[in-house]
Amino acid sequence: MKQTLWEAYPILFGGDYNPEQWPEATWETDMEMLAQAHVNSATINVFSWALLEPQEGTYDFSMLDKIINLLQKHNFQIVMATSTAALPAWMVKQYPDVTRVDTHGIRQGFGKRHNACPNSPNFQRLAQDLVTAIAKRYAHNSNIVCWHISNEYGGQCYCDNCAQDFRNWLQKRYGTIAALNQAWDTNIWSHTFHSFDEIVPPDQHTDEFENGGAMLGGESLDYRRFQSDSLLANFKLEKDIIRATDQKTPITTNFMGTQKDLDYFKWAKELDVVSWDNYPSFDTPASFTAMNHDLMYGLKQAPFMLMEQTPSQQNWQPYNALKDPGEFRMLSYQAMAHGANTVQVFQLKQSRNGCESLHGSIISHVNSTETRVFKESAQIGQELAGLPADLLTSKKQADVAIIFDWASFWAIDFALGPSVRLDYVQQVHAYYQYFYSKNIAVDMISVDDDFSQYRLVIAPTLFVLRNETATKINEYVHTGGNFVTNAMSGLVDEEDNVHLNGYFKLLQPALGLWAEEWDVLPPVSTCEVNFNGHLTTKANIVCDLLHLDTATPLATYQTDRFYNGTPAVTANRYGTGQGFLVGTYLDEGGMQHLGDLLVTAAGLTSADQPTGVELSHRYSDKYQYDFLINTTAQARTYRYEAGAKATDLLTNHPVKSGELTLAPYAVKIIQQPMI
Amino acid sequence: MKQTLWEAYPILFGGDYNPEQWPEATWETDMEMLAQAHVNSATINVFSWALLEPQEGTYDFSMLDKIINLLQKHNFQIVMATSTAALPAWMVKQYPDVTRVDTHGIRQGFGKRHNACPNSPNFQRLAQDLVTAIAKRYAHNSNIVCWHISNEYGGQCYCDNCAQDFRNWLQKRYGTIAALNQAWDTNIWSHTFHSFDEIVPPDQHTDEFENGGAMLGGESLDYRRFQSDSLLANFKLEKDIIRATDQKTPITTNFMGTQKDLDYFKWAKELDVVSWDNYPSFDTPASFTAMNHDLMYGLKQAPFMLMEQTPSQQNWQPYNALKDPGEFRMLSYQAMAHGANTVQVFQLKQSRNGCESLHGSIISHVNSTETRVFKESAQIGQELAGLPADLLTSKKQADVAIIFDWASFWAIDFALGPSVRLDYVQQVHAYYQYFYSKNIAVDMISVDDDFSQYRLVIAPTLFVLRNETATKINEYVHTGGNFVTNAMSGLVDEEDNVHLNGYFKLLQPALGLWAEEWDVLPPVSTCEVNFNGHLTTKANIVCDLLHLDTATPLATYQTDRFYNGTPAVTANRYGTGQGFLVGTYLDEGGMQHLGDLLVTAAGLTSADQPTGVELSHRYSDKYQYDFLINTTAQARTYRYEAGAKATDLLTNHPVKSGELTLAPYAVKIIQQPMI
Amino acid sequence: MKQTLWEAYPILFGGDYNPEQWPEATWETDMEMLAQAHVNSATINVFSWALLEPQEGTYDFSMLDKIINLLQKHNFQIVMATSTAALPAWMVKQYPDVTRVDTHGIRQGFGKRHNACPNSPNFQRLAQDLVTAIAKRYAHNSNIVCWHISNEYGGQCYCDNCAQDFRNWLQKRYGTIAALNQAWDTNIWSHTFHSFDEIVPPDQHTDEFENGGAMLGGESLDYRRFQSDSLLANFKLEKDIIRATDQKTPITTNFMGTQKDLDYFKWAKELDVVSWDNYPSFDTPASFTAMNHDLMYGLKQAPFMLMEQTPSQQNWQPYNALKDPGEFRMLSYQAMAHGANTVQVFQLKQSRNGCESLHGSIISHVNSTETRVFKESAQIGQELAGLPADLLTSKKQADVAIIFDWASFWAIDFALGPSVRLDYVQQVHAYYQYFYSKNIAVDMISVDDDFSQYRLVIAPTLFVLRNETATKINEYVHTGGNFVTNAMSGLVDEEDNVHLNGYFKLLQPALGLWAEEWDVLPPVSTCEVNFNGHLTTKANIVCDLLHLDTATPLATYQTDRFYNGTPAVTANRYGTGQGFLVGTYLDEGGMQHLGDLLVTAAGLTSADQPTGVELSHRYSDKYQYDFLINTTAQARTYRYEAGAKATDLLTNHPVKSGELTLAPYAVKIIQQPMI
Repeated sequence: MKQTLWEAYPILFGGDYNPEQWPEATWETDMEMLAQAHVNSATINVFSWALLEPQEGTYDFSMLDKIINLLQKHNFQIVMATSTAALPAWMVKQYPDVTRVDTHGIRQGFGKRHNACPNSPNFQRLAQDLVTAIAKRYAHNSNIVCWHISNEYGGQCYCDNCAQDFRNWLQKRYGTIAALNQAWDTNIWSHTFHSFDEIVPPDQHTDEFENGGAMLGGESLDYRRFQSDSLLANFKLEKDIIRATDQKTPITTNFMGTQKDLDYFKWAKELDVVSWDNYPSFDTPASFTAMNHDLMYGLKQAPFMLMEQTPSQQNWQPYNALKDPGEFRMLSYQAMAHGANTVQVFQLKQSRNGCESLHGSIISHVNSTETRVFKESAQIGQELAGLPADLLTSKKQADVAIIFDWASFWAIDFALGPSVRLDYVQQVHAYYQYFYSKNIAVDMISVDDDFSQYRLVIAPTLFVLRNETATKINEYVHTGGNFVTNAMSGLVDEEDNVHLNGYFKLLQPALGLWAEEWDVLPPVSTCEVNFNGHLTTKANIVCDLLHLDTATPLATYQTDRFYNGTPAVTANRYGTGQGFLVGTYLDEGGMQHLGDLLVTAAGLTSADQPTGVELSHRYSDKYQYDFLINTTAQARTYRYEAGAKATDLLTNHPVKSGELTLAPYAVKIIQQPMI
Repeated sequence: MKQTLWEAYPILFGGDYNPEQWPEATWETDMEMLAQAHVNSATINVFSWALLEPQEGTYDFSMLDKIINLLQKHNFQIVMATSTAALPAWMVKQYPDVTRVDTHGIRQGFGKRHNACPNSPNFQRLAQDLVTAIAKRYAHNSNIVCWHISNEYGGQCYCDNCAQDFRNWLQKRYGTIAALNQAWDTNIWSHTFHSFDEIVPPDQHTDEFENGGAMLGGESLDYRRFQSDSLLANFKLEKDIIRATDQKTPITTNFMGTQKDLDYFKWAKELDVVSWDNYPSFDTPASFTAMNHDLMYGLKQAPFMLMEQTPSQQNWQPYNALKDPGEFRMLSYQAMAHGANTVQVFQLKQSRNGCESLHGSIISHVNSTETRVFKESAQIGQELAGLPADLLTSKKQADVAIIFDWASFWAIDFALGPSVRLDYVQQVHAYYQYFYSKNIAVDMISVDDDFSQYRLVIAPTLFVLRNETATKINEYVHTGGNFVTNAMSGLVDEEDNVHLNGYFKLLQPALGLWAEEWDVLPPVSTCEVNFNGHLTTKANIVCDLLHLDTATPLATYQTDRFYNGTPAVTANRYGTGQGFLVGTYLDEGGMQHLGDLLVTAAGLTSADQPTGVELSHRYSDKYQYDFLINTTAQARTYRYEAGAKATDLLTNHPVKSGELTLAPYAVKIIQQPMI
Repeated sequence: MKQTLWEAYPILFGGDYNPEQWPEATWETDMEMLAQAHVNSATINVFSWALLEPQEGTYDFSMLDKIINLLQKHNFQIVMATSTAALPAWMVKQYPDVTRVDTHGIRQGFGKRHNACPNSPNFQRLAQDLVTAIAKRYAHNSNIVCWHISNEYGGQCYCDNCAQDFRNWLQKRYGTIAALNQAWDTNIWSHTFHSFDEIVPPDQHTDEFENGGAMLGGESLDYRRFQSDSLLANFKLEKDIIRATDQKTPITTNFMGTQKDLDYFKWAKELDVVSWDNYPSFDTPASFTAMNHDLMYGLKQAPFMLMEQTPSQQNWQPYNALKDPGEFRMLSYQAMAHGANTVQVFQLKQSRNGCESLHGSIISHVNSTETRVFKESAQIGQELAGLPADLLTSKKQADVAIIFDWASFWAIDFALGPSVRLDYVQQVHAYYQYFYSKNIAVDMISVDDDFSQYRLVIAPTLFVLRNETATKINEYVHTGGNFVTNAMSGLVDEEDNVHLNGYFKLLQPALGLWAEEWDVLPPVSTCEVNFNGHLTTKANIVCDLLHLDTATPLATYQTDRFYNGTPAVTANRYGTGQGFLVGTYLDEGGMQHLGDLLVTAAGLTSADQPTGVELSHRYSDKYQYDFLINTTAQARTYRYEAGAKATDLLTNHPVKSGELTLAPYAVKIIQQPMI
């Protein structure tokens, strides 16, 4: 029924455009300038509620009509937002419950954005009315190629409406209060509940600690789930209204990579297409950006929209360094290499006021087509226009999967202990980074995805482990899979209850071991991991103390503590596969050594290459696309093995095997026929 | 009338046990496992209010009955808690005033624990009803050897009920508003009160500053006293109920060492026996733990219960390192060496959920008797069972006393100035540490204790000095005592009014000097203290500028500031004793040098010994017990002078004089007949 | 009509005196002691509201009468405060709206000081009544030489009264909501307002971010202006009452140098004389103190009162180091060198309680005239008494002006971006420091002052630039002026709207360039500035990327980034003057090099001198006064060029040209007849 964005249209090149911030007299000039940059689309109406509905129930679409007419006249495709991400002042004044209550119990007033209480009936009703009016008026506009609902969903509310809806949500989940008491283990600290209406949201003035820790893990995890679901219900409310009128245009909302608040795997099921906003800082490793792209791709294992990025500099980071010449272009193609089918920015024209006025745009404050950034944008626009439609049908392929698990992300941060140094995303990235450095494609997957298609599945710090996931892992290894996990994995169930009888016991078949306890390493620790004499590298954060059943040690601890010489890293044959356990957190050298062992074990092909050069692949039915990217500011050389008829799509020149010189931030998109 | 815990029973080995968190089917196995570890007691019912009283006035003791029956059946002694340390959810819902209002004026909701407003009439009434029911039902149970009221009292509330009770408390203390105005010196910053009902609790949204400083020291000190008294009234409310029914079983609540909130010297008077929870971090010096034990002993100058410790690792510290093998045992005997007559842990069985689920226990998540920690626990249990009853009658003896003063602790932190680096507990410990390092026993005492029994009394940073205490000190020195104090001592009276006419003037007889002013040293300072050419060591925090009357200098400042060469440390003969003043804060080298001078002056016996080896003594009517403890992870040798018939109670082997080899964490309890 | 303070009286030497904190029996002794220190005045009644008005409408002046009688009897001049800076407890109890609501929306309770809501009708009414009573009773007292209204005004309130008055203030400023929407650019993030009553104060629970950034710069800037105006209205309310009764005595309130909250240039217009409180920390550079004095002088370009300083040590800083002997005296004369015509302290007698009890005073806790500090005070008092009346008529002269702009100060802190390292005051000081180090007098001026009298005008980080200011700058350069500005200057208009078409475009005539964009330097950056080979020095914070029209480069960037070799510092001839642009932030070495270039360009006379020696000048109609000050703790020598009849007023010795030896903290006030 629904067509995808990329079947019907050329590559979208555009971004957020807010002409309502500017005199109408300037709009035509904007259009002409943007056309010079080959911009073919605009995201509009993201924050216009106060303009669209000057008072309750009275709509004024005159400005939006003009904007849409302008874009249509200039043949711009439209990504149409719904304006519900920021509340009008009159609404907060009239219905104070539409804003959130914070973790200290303080109701927020009018201001900022992204602060509507998801469970406010007033907010829900008013959003529904607005979106109904918008859908009615614009749903059949042929220039609208995508609906963009609200904006960057996230955050929590702790108000009475949320409390009441939380109780209902819990009643649906657990049925009886007894079942809830059992699931949450509430006899701790006198938390036994006798009816659902005794339950209040866990926040810092109730059941959470100043450091973010939770009194009852199950309660806090459920509140995260509930809030994520509440926002998702807001999304679905709007989506359903639009879909009722418009059965074919894709609907999305913009995601934010490895953010913590929302379980994107659950959300992605409700989106027609994933889109996200990519804002690396000056010191973000290229591998981290790549991992975020792969995660966004992995939400549906399908291409996504790069909804936002800045062509020049952010403004909300501590040090908003300028992108180098070519870096915006490089980052755009890096996104594409990992599955992006659009290149969009925030924003087309730089605001002159508001808290984003120092955020770079294609049309900068200079208001000229002669700026460095405009010219680079125009180059990208021109190049994108020349790329073949077939590219948009191409997909990733990977033999390696890394599990990303929002439940574990939440539960680790709610846990009191074992160490303040444990950072979930950083530890997932530590594994990703190795494969990235070897140009080995990785799929980012959820615990619910199919493992069988991968030669190697990695579950870094998979703190929350359901029984059925454990069974699936054991089965995967037994039937030939290679599985890796590490310290703090498999510790608790979905409601934060520790799995008993030895840590890793649920994975004992696959791993061939269990752990009795773990030590915690202060920063001053000198504990090391010795890979059977080949390499000695620092151990970090925790050290599992392991009992090997069938597993064999790959490395042992080297320490002045009592567990000196005991196993730190292990391998275990189980059925026709292998299960690996890393009982601690390795530094980069350790990860390199471990990764090499895993590559060999899984029979993967790995290639050494110059630091910062990335080779990624996409595959259509007809072609292979190699994205060869120098992510650095220095020139690099790369020995590239070209097939017959290999062509660089950005130059239309044939590419031959051999040493390629890659200028700083150079990009080649090499198309070769599938064999 | 009341028997002490240790006259009637063997050494309690046990700890918190929460079977209500587990299926009943597992309880018998717990008992069998614990019996294998020679556990003979359990602390129960600490956090069960919500279970015991599912709705107001309706009690359900079925689960508690079962637990008590279980323990009785297995001959476990019971430390019986009252469950008032955490509120049921229904109570907070029904009576919001039962929770506290924080320093920003925000009422807390249901959650966590230790958060009942001590002055809530509803809380008081409901606690009274619950404890009455508990006492009625269980007071005559012969297995109950100790009552444990609430848990780890502490914290402050700033609600309207507290405000009203504070006014009453002040009226009782001062009689008239004029007397209060004079005591607090309220004409500062327009704080003159015209009636008691104008007074509000000092918090951060009234009279305290963000950094914890107080606008009016007297007001904030009195609020501390009032809150400490309010919680003590809660304790006494419960104690009186129990005592009405049970006239013989000792009653306690668990203390927390050098915590700040409660004046334990005042509290201890109301307890039959002191108990406390010992949670050193991985980097806590052994001397600091010893000081805490000595302080807990000193509250009543009597043996105490070691109510809680972890056998393996904490979970709420930044880095929850595992205890080494033998370290749990060593710490248990170190406690005993300083007066503990029980060895208890939190907890017997590790929770599988809640914010303490990663806190180590005797029965760990492995649920096995084969774990390292279980086996070490069993060893301790077996050893304790073999120790003689006479040991529990033994007491400490010391020639040195160090004053610990909660009023000074509070007042220093309320003071704006002189330096952010002044930490009361750390500075008390600096003095304690010297004597610890020389195996010289120290009594921790209050300003109200008798000084005359000591050869040396030290008052580190005794900021608050009452006239009567000053008189007592001067008298003590005059009649032969050796007294030491240091910078920032004797500055103010009980209501924070500075003593005029020269700092130290109240102690002028004893010290033979006064100070005109003090310099404050930034961290970059190079000011040093020169002990008459023998040693030069860093001065820290402040430097008193002294005028010597009869005192003589032991050390002078060495600085590029104008007070170069003036006295830094002094001695003064007064009557037949001596008064010493240290005008600054010394580093460890300086403390060693100073300590040696004091040892000589006071005619104490001091012995050099290997770092980390502790020799402590307890004395009964019949025996001397020497606790020789290697607190370190390395082997040590120690030259021990044994009397005749010296026997190591842990091996039942005779001990002879000579070089003893002490393995890591080795402990010897050497019994010798009193001569 | 009004006489100035210095025409009628000798130099005021005195300070805050609070006898109401002490028994009356001690007052006479205070007077006698102060007379020994040549103290001739006292500031009284600063915080006595609760004493003066024990209940609403009932006044009790008995204590104040006694204090005034005491001072009159001893011929002390009186600086008479109005007591409105701290609220009585009864008032807060009766009228809770008199206290402020903080940035989180929490109403403050009774306590501390400086916390009255400026827009509380109850506060306004009660203050008016009190001051009316005071004026009526004391206005004709001949010993009152100055009125001191309230104390150290500052801070913000976010209550409903403020919200309503803010709306009225905005209506007056903008007329229509449409005009406000345009000025604030409210179509961003759905902030369009449809009526004034939708507007709420921007705070952290509405429109400001946790880091202090603003959602709408115009809104937050206007709220700052409104709050500054509201407090100023409080001041004027009191002033008008006093002026109605007393037409001749000067009225002031004490300022606090480079504080952020109030636009002192606007305030100073309402004060008869500027007064301020000088509290350098142990590590405050002498140049920073000098800059503050020059700013206070610059508010009216007239001598000011040094209302407060401590003779010995502060108590509210992290490390409250003691002033060296002579340092209090040196700082007093440094103030005078920069325009102070009084020498006053906080306070004459040290409090024995309250949060300022550890703050040094002339009469210390020792309560003696024999203290070091008392004797130094007495020396100063004696010297001041000997200084000629003509000195008080003397004024500063400067060829260099530095613009200090509160709007820019506010707007930079409200901006999200470009770098967390940008500190407005520190960057103004970086320019001031150069001229200070060369003994070149600087006037601190506002953007509204006349530039034409200066050879060099510097506008460091003048973030906010109005069109008329830009025009004035261009005109100043065109007619021969030398103008310097730097990165982040001229960025926005008064409502935070970015000036378009190229950064610095409003100053393009003067500077001969525009900037396209800027890079932001993280702390790890290695970017440098190369002054055409003469000097290479670190670039900091940001680097403007410049397009030179008529400007020529004085320095270029040296970096591994793409803008290597492009201009960093430029000069431009325009008309008969020059405009300089520093596109980045220089370190001290860079500032020295730049400063030397500017001195040459502007034809200024500069002299190298020993570090820490300051030579400042004041000029009366008859005499030049040279203040030669060694601000350091080390001896210095200085080659001084004396005119004929040069006399050191502090020794009455003639001064001859040549090498003068200056002891630590030495001061010479050399009088020479004007030629």
